[in-house]
Amino acid sequence: MNSIANGTEPLRVAVLGSGKGSNCQSIFDAIDAQQLNVRVVCVASDVEDAFILQRAAEHKIPAQFISALPFKTKLDGKAEEAYIAYMRSHGAQVVALAGFMRIIKPGLLAAFPRAVINIHPSLLPAFPGLEAWKQALDYGVKVTGCTVHFVDAGMDTGPVIVQKSVPVLDDDTPQTLHARIQVQEHIAYPEALSVIAARAIRIDGRKVLIAG
Amino acid sequence: MNSIANGTEPLRVAVLGSGKGSNCQSIFDAIDAQQLNVRVVCVASDVEDAFILQRAAEHKIPAQFISALPFKTKLDGKAEEAYIAYMRSHGAQVVALAGFMRIIKPGLLAAFPRAVINIHPSLLPAFPGLEAWKQALDYGVKVTGCTVHFVDAGMDTGPVIVQKSVPVLDDDTPQTLHARIQVQEHIAYPEALSVIAARAIRIDGRKVLIAG
Repeated sequence: MNSIANGTEPLRVAVLGSGKGSNCQSIFDAIDAQQLNVRVVCVASDVEDAFILQRAAEHKIPAQFISALPFKTKLDGKAEEAYIAYMRSHGAQVVALAGFMRIIKPGLLAAFPRAVINIHPSLLPAFPGLEAWKQALDYGVKVTGCTVHFVDAGMDTGPVIVQKSVPVLDDDTPQTLHARIQVQEHIAYPEALSVIAARAIRIDGRKVLIAG
Repeated sequence: MNSIANGTEPLRVAVLGSGKGSNCQSIFDAIDAQQLNVRVVCVASDVEDAFILQRAAEHKIPAQFISALPFKTKLDGKAEEAYIAYMRSHGAQVVALAGFMRIIKPGLLAAFPRAVINIHPSLLPAFPGLEAWKQALDYGVKVTGCTVHFVDAGMDTGPVIVQKSVPVLDDDTPQTLHARIQVQEHIAYPEALSVIAARAIRIDGRKVLIAG
């Protein structure tokens, strides 16, 4: 990861999550260590008591529960509009999904074009969808990993920014493998934000190219 | 890779290839370095002037062109029978595919049950099929690799024995990426044969578990 050596304005990032927010924490940590030219301008969750909201509040970052009902698995309609309005009101340039358990629809993608990113616990295109670490274990792979990618209209199909590989051990359980992947997630997500914040990314078709 | 420390009989391996046989060479090299308790008992090719046959002859290993016509993309019918008879006549226990550009049919799989292995230039299940390094480059992944797996009736779907990851660089061409993957192939194939030769493998559903 690059240290912050130039005078570029911090990238203004909104984080959306549904759970404990460990990836969000890795972003906070990288910022606190001055390794990441990012300002998290707001955090939102579709789960009222999600720990990610508490983490944000502890960092004095605006944090808000925004209901995504009546939908169960997607962010759409009035709820989508509310999320967009909230993030725009905080001047977000990039939306970072960190365990946000809803499918992102075209409205949000159009509001933040090529600026919604996600982290997925496998080496995509292998094992898209839910519980990717369990899919990997069931398949019997010896190497899996994590992927930070731009979100597009597909399910875990957008251009890849960063990937990290993780070994699978014979005695792994879903829990031990997931934990090993998360260690790499916490390296990968700040790294991906770092290159976006350095305005060093060029997207050529499906390829994300990083200058320098 | 384990060195040969016990008195186990060498595993008798037949190698099939259609091209230059660089993976076959990596097996010869590991044997010559006494890192692999394997004896290559015969080599066969469906391409009359394939360099793999010359490599084998230089190692004084029985090597034979066996036509697989009239089929173009599979090993079937009388040709399949000829391959099986040839390998059986040399007492092969395991069939190692090393750039053998034909689909293996159930006849050969039944003749060598759970004993036909292949190497594929991607981290399966990502990018099965032809020119996997080019598929990876076109997708825009940042990590790819290679996979040694048991062959089953599907296309590159059998249980995984060994995988190695390989970084993809922004300025990679299909050639540079393929070359970087091949470096890992030449480590992975002897490693996979080593654990089979140590009789240390247990197959549990799709999972290949390695003792010790």
